[in-house]
Amino acid sequence: MKGKILLSHGAGGKETGELLNALIVSRIWENLKRVEGGYGIDVLDDGATIPLGDGRHMVLSIDSFTVNPIFFPGGDIGKLAATGSINDVAVMGAKPIALMDSIVVEEGFSMEDLEKIVKSMIAVAGEEGIAIIGGDFKVMPKGQIDKIVISTVVVGIASKPIIDKHLKPGDKIIISGTVGEHGATIMALQQGLGIEAGELRSDCQPLTKLMLPLVEKYPDDIHAAQDPTRGGVAQVLNEWAQKTGNIIVIEEEKIPIREPVRAYSEMLGVDPLSLACEGRVLLGVEREAAEKVLKYIRNLGYVDAEIIGEVHEPKKHRGLVLEKTIAGGIKVLEPPSGEIVPRIC
Amino acid sequence: MKGKILLSHGAGGKETGELLNALIVSRIWENLKRVEGGYGIDVLDDGATIPLGDGRHMVLSIDSFTVNPIFFPGGDIGKLAATGSINDVAVMGAKPIALMDSIVVEEGFSMEDLEKIVKSMIAVAGEEGIAIIGGDFKVMPKGQIDKIVISTVVVGIASKPIIDKHLKPGDKIIISGTVGEHGATIMALQQGLGIEAGELRSDCQPLTKLMLPLVEKYPDDIHAAQDPTRGGVAQVLNEWAQKTGNIIVIEEEKIPIREPVRAYSEMLGVDPLSLACEGRVLLGVEREAAEKVLKYIRNLGYVDAEIIGEVHEPKKHRGLVLEKTIAGGIKVLEPPSGEIVPRIC
Repeated sequence: MKGKILLSHGAGGKETGELLNALIVSRIWENLKRVEGGYGIDVLDDGATIPLGDGRHMVLSIDSFTVNPIFFPGGDIGKLAATGSINDVAVMGAKPIALMDSIVVEEGFSMEDLEKIVKSMIAVAGEEGIAIIGGDFKVMPKGQIDKIVISTVVVGIASKPIIDKHLKPGDKIIISGTVGEHGATIMALQQGLGIEAGELRSDCQPLTKLMLPLVEKYPDDIHAAQDPTRGGVAQVLNEWAQKTGNIIVIEEEKIPIREPVRAYSEMLGVDPLSLACEGRVLLGVEREAAEKVLKYIRNLGYVDAEIIGEVHEPKKHRGLVLEKTIAGGIKVLEPPSGEIVPRIC
Repeated sequence: MKGKILLSHGAGGKETGELLNALIVSRIWENLKRVEGGYGIDVLDDGATIPLGDGRHMVLSIDSFTVNPIFFPGGDIGKLAATGSINDVAVMGAKPIALMDSIVVEEGFSMEDLEKIVKSMIAVAGEEGIAIIGGDFKVMPKGQIDKIVISTVVVGIASKPIIDKHLKPGDKIIISGTVGEHGATIMALQQGLGIEAGELRSDCQPLTKLMLPLVEKYPDDIHAAQDPTRGGVAQVLNEWAQKTGNIIVIEEEKIPIREPVRAYSEMLGVDPLSLACEGRVLLGVEREAAEKVLKYIRNLGYVDAEIIGEVHEPKKHRGLVLEKTIAGGIKVLEPPSGEIVPRIC
């Protein structure tokens, strides 16, 4: 392979998928892409599964967090690192039980800041009752890493993992809350735009309080679930459409977007649907159950949840996402590409 | 906590242990330091365990690799990242079954180098029959990270995990091969010392071909096992002594050190016992079985393996490592402290 790594290769959009497939996934021997009986790297889901032999699955997810700035309204890199990996496991229908972290920090980094970050991470795990069972810690000389990178792994147990490729025609698409809050916050900070107090705030929060009761109550009706982080809602829906070959149609007017997020996105020239959420989940739900599920989610406290679209069988085209605009038109919602926002998570 | 992070905090020696205890371990609620019935962050072993309910344990380990240079005689950061986490699981007596990786790379990094690194990682997993089940990939803007950092997690299954605190008085200490090869190689390269062809070479290699047959053959006789990476043999033996309160006595003349490693270490002013190995294991073995175990290990092809010392009950002092020198004296082998070698692994 020739050339150089670009920011777009790490943006979580089209280029990331293409690179990782060429670089890694296609190179692993077919029988080593998963543990026998589990879901592995080839399903490109939030996490992977290892069957435990008693009907249950262990679900594992790994992520490295490079967010810049490391402190932001609504959280910090420690909270994000714990939350992000917890959510990857939760959206697979698993109960997170253990976390491991690996911190790489720059020489000269403030001990006080490190303490705040670690406290945030421990607080999230503590509130969730998740054990922190191990970790690693490295220091790189001054100037060789910008502040801090945290990698986390979360382990969970699922009796029936939610695998997104099971999304099917007829399914309704539900979003659990307003979109783009994390992405808009980080992007505004990176661009040096002042954020008025309370205007923008990351939505960074664990999804366990939503996902665990939901999969218990509706074990057969949740066909797909993913937290729309890098590349946002547009990325997840395109992945789902491509994986299943279906057409997903969403309605712009149904998508909950807070006014400041809309305003900042316009100012920054990005579609809020491409901006990362760190505390929302997209669900693909059995058609007949969708209204009940929506009501249930709202009753859990997620009052902004909405049914935003539906899955259709492919006809002429396969694997597309269409958006019915408020203006009455219809447009293709492309998978995000380009740089989007570097170091968003 | 006040002050700034120093290189010594990441060296894997005394300062690392003190910082991580104050910063992380002591802050986690007591009941969340492990999954119930497993070994967690407080045992400070190579990995952690999660009981599977059928007598078996899942063993997990996480590490971030920051080695500099990223290509070196005997390997590269990809081989090291796979090997290092595999070894952490193997020395706990577990059979590694799955690997996850997270790569953070600098914008502008050569695609060709990335390909070489990833190929090395995949090759190690492939040869070991370990599935690569998932991963993450991030890009940081030019100048915000020096080249590449890889974090890996390996999952293994053990019927009886080896937990180092079970080391007991009378046990013999065995090293599986010559020491300090990885550390001396990286240090010489960092110092800009030319390495003559073949003189120094990292010992980076998976320990599965040693550990798996060993624990099968001698399930009750291996009381402790650890790969002496950061801080080397001196670090591991001091950890063992401190964990168990015992006195460990080793004999300098028994320690296998290749001549170029000895020469470079002298030139660089370090004790080879503080230098990282990436393909060796230290074992604490039941006294009566030690000679048989040594023979068995040598027959597996580890011809430089040696019994280098013995564990004694503490008398006046507790938790010390003593070294009988070739000159006939006896000295305290201190836990390594200070910077040692930054970015050694």
